[in-house]
Amino acid sequence: MRILVDAMGGYNAPEAIVNGSLDALKSQEGFDLTLIGDSEQINEILKNRKFSSSRLQVIHSREVITNEDLPTKAIRSKKNSSMVVGFNMLKEKQGDVFLSAGNTGALLTGALLILGRLKGVDRPALGAVVPTKAGKCLIIDAGLNSTCKPVNYVQFGIFGSAYMQGLFNKPNPTVGLVNMGTEAKKGTEVLKQAYTMLTESKLNFVGNIEGKDVPVGKVDVAVCDGYVGNVMLKFLEGAGSFFGAFLKGMFKRTIFTKISTLFVMKDMMAFRKMMDPSEDGGAPILGVNGIVLKSHGNSNDKTIKNVILKAYNLARSSVFDQIKENVDNMEVTDVEKRERKRWNFRNRKLRPKKSFEQFRSGKDG
Amino acid sequence: MRILVDAMGGYNAPEAIVNGSLDALKSQEGFDLTLIGDSEQINEILKNRKFSSSRLQVIHSREVITNEDLPTKAIRSKKNSSMVVGFNMLKEKQGDVFLSAGNTGALLTGALLILGRLKGVDRPALGAVVPTKAGKCLIIDAGLNSTCKPVNYVQFGIFGSAYMQGLFNKPNPTVGLVNMGTEAKKGTEVLKQAYTMLTESKLNFVGNIEGKDVPVGKVDVAVCDGYVGNVMLKFLEGAGSFFGAFLKGMFKRTIFTKISTLFVMKDMMAFRKMMDPSEDGGAPILGVNGIVLKSHGNSNDKTIKNVILKAYNLARSSVFDQIKENVDNMEVTDVEKRERKRWNFRNRKLRPKKSFEQFRSGKDG
Repeated sequence: MRILVDAMGGYNAPEAIVNGSLDALKSQEGFDLTLIGDSEQINEILKNRKFSSSRLQVIHSREVITNEDLPTKAIRSKKNSSMVVGFNMLKEKQGDVFLSAGNTGALLTGALLILGRLKGVDRPALGAVVPTKAGKCLIIDAGLNSTCKPVNYVQFGIFGSAYMQGLFNKPNPTVGLVNMGTEAKKGTEVLKQAYTMLTESKLNFVGNIEGKDVPVGKVDVAVCDGYVGNVMLKFLEGAGSFFGAFLKGMFKRTIFTKISTLFVMKDMMAFRKMMDPSEDGGAPILGVNGIVLKSHGNSNDKTIKNVILKAYNLARSSVFDQIKENVDNMEVTDVEKRERKRWNFRNRKLRPKKSFEQFRSGKDG
Repeated sequence: MRILVDAMGGYNAPEAIVNGSLDALKSQEGFDLTLIGDSEQINEILKNRKFSSSRLQVIHSREVITNEDLPTKAIRSKKNSSMVVGFNMLKEKQGDVFLSAGNTGALLTGALLILGRLKGVDRPALGAVVPTKAGKCLIIDAGLNSTCKPVNYVQFGIFGSAYMQGLFNKPNPTVGLVNMGTEAKKGTEVLKQAYTMLTESKLNFVGNIEGKDVPVGKVDVAVCDGYVGNVMLKFLEGAGSFFGAFLKGMFKRTIFTKISTLFVMKDMMAFRKMMDPSEDGGAPILGVNGIVLKSHGNSNDKTIKNVILKAYNLARSSVFDQIKENVDNMEVTDVEKRERKRWNFRNRKLRPKKSFEQFRSGKDG
């Protein structure tokens, strides 16, 4: 197995990326690693670490896509950037998984334009695993599609179920639709239709869930549009910081509370670790033709190491094949038939040559 | 001042409502109170408490709007329900503020149908105050409008600013737009337009905020649509339960940690109090012709007491007049002019006699 790493992505690149990669190679056997980026800079860091390994390969690329670049323009014009080179290598099967901490928009655009959507997938999505009272929950979509169609929620459920099953050994993961209340008739028209489609799907759908059900851990997979998903993901980060500050203040108050800190230090560290995004970094882009992980912009050595190990587990798992198979076998339910009819009607005159299957697969006829 | 209370609303009615009302009367001078509901049941509870006061009045109403009732139908058909009677009394100035823990949908529908929108208001909104690292933040809309137009966000900002200024003495409150990132060009088309309109408004608008900025306390007022607002509000509740369970587990582990609990007990109680929705219950419905507070369905004695005291403060404050004045004086910005033009165009043939002002005030011509 070969893991492709964008060495130039993120605020701490290339130092953190190269160092994290070396740490990952040291801690885990079973894969080779390709660093893509400015070979001069990369080799300088490698030299300092006095590291040489037959498992490490460096591929030189001249350009870098920065956070200021416009996604589509960057992917189209910077053909020799570390990100575009990485995507092309993944596409040409010169690697099994690609990860980057670079420009999120460009990474998503690259995944769509270079790798393309899986057959049958209408919209890919970003998944994000968050800690809960009961263990872990995958929020999907966590920020890729600000608005969605009903069919998207069902597909996000398929992606998410495969991910939680393949990566965390959750048998038949529970799926909930994030809504304003648990009743079936809640929310916008799109959410109501999504509810009906999810009920008719083969997923282990438990119905509508409210915001509180995510941190409480009521479901394994919480499906929502990217706007709501992104807000929840960030909200948890903020709430962690708020609660952390409260705890810190609490233990600092008197000499007795300061002594108390000693007894709970281990748990406090565990809490911090649980809430630390660098511990469980690496959000998968699901629904595209390849395995892609996005690490956050300010990833440090530790984050990169963990994301690489996650990429290793992900590439060994059956998640990708599961998604492919399940989307392909997605039952054409009554609701979808209606949607298909409406779609055909709507597009009758505008695009007469594009079939619903082409529409769903994202390929023009 | 007279506070009108729906004695039949909520899961614990009428016991909790009546008892909470008596507690409120005991703890605070300066207002009279009217309990609306089944006088037989109410008097039975009053008798048990051996309470008689010239400050308390009971108005009999036969019917009750339950949580199973359909909002619009209930408001229209159950003319003698405690909720409809309460709204009518508020409308006829037989009271200064009305509060209920009953069916949320019916309460909102009643506010719209019986009280009506304030002049210039397009859509009323539900506000919810949440604790943050920095103090308090008002989330508005917290669940009334699942989708919004750009102008709504500006008006929510006006409602929220007046509320935080009037009730919590925040001078010139900061307003943020909840989005998927802080850059100006983030989010859906509606959010982008709302951003421009907020920038051009007289509000102390600080720009887009992310989910994490709410619990961190970056702004005093977080404006968003009711779907996102509701999800955030509930998410905080769930996160509080998650963190609380973690703390409990932490202190239970060994004899030393159990002893430690003694030293931090006071702070732990303060934390629980801060996160307890019954401590700061009472979400205002803003933008309608009257002061209405919604208490949550499972309100207990303590919640009702606190909501009544909040209602007292709210009715004494200038919040209502401020909103009235500011919405009326809302500057017609370039963006709004464009929206107005588009609206006129869209409605040219359908409703030729309805002007934009009538559209905004919600009254048909």
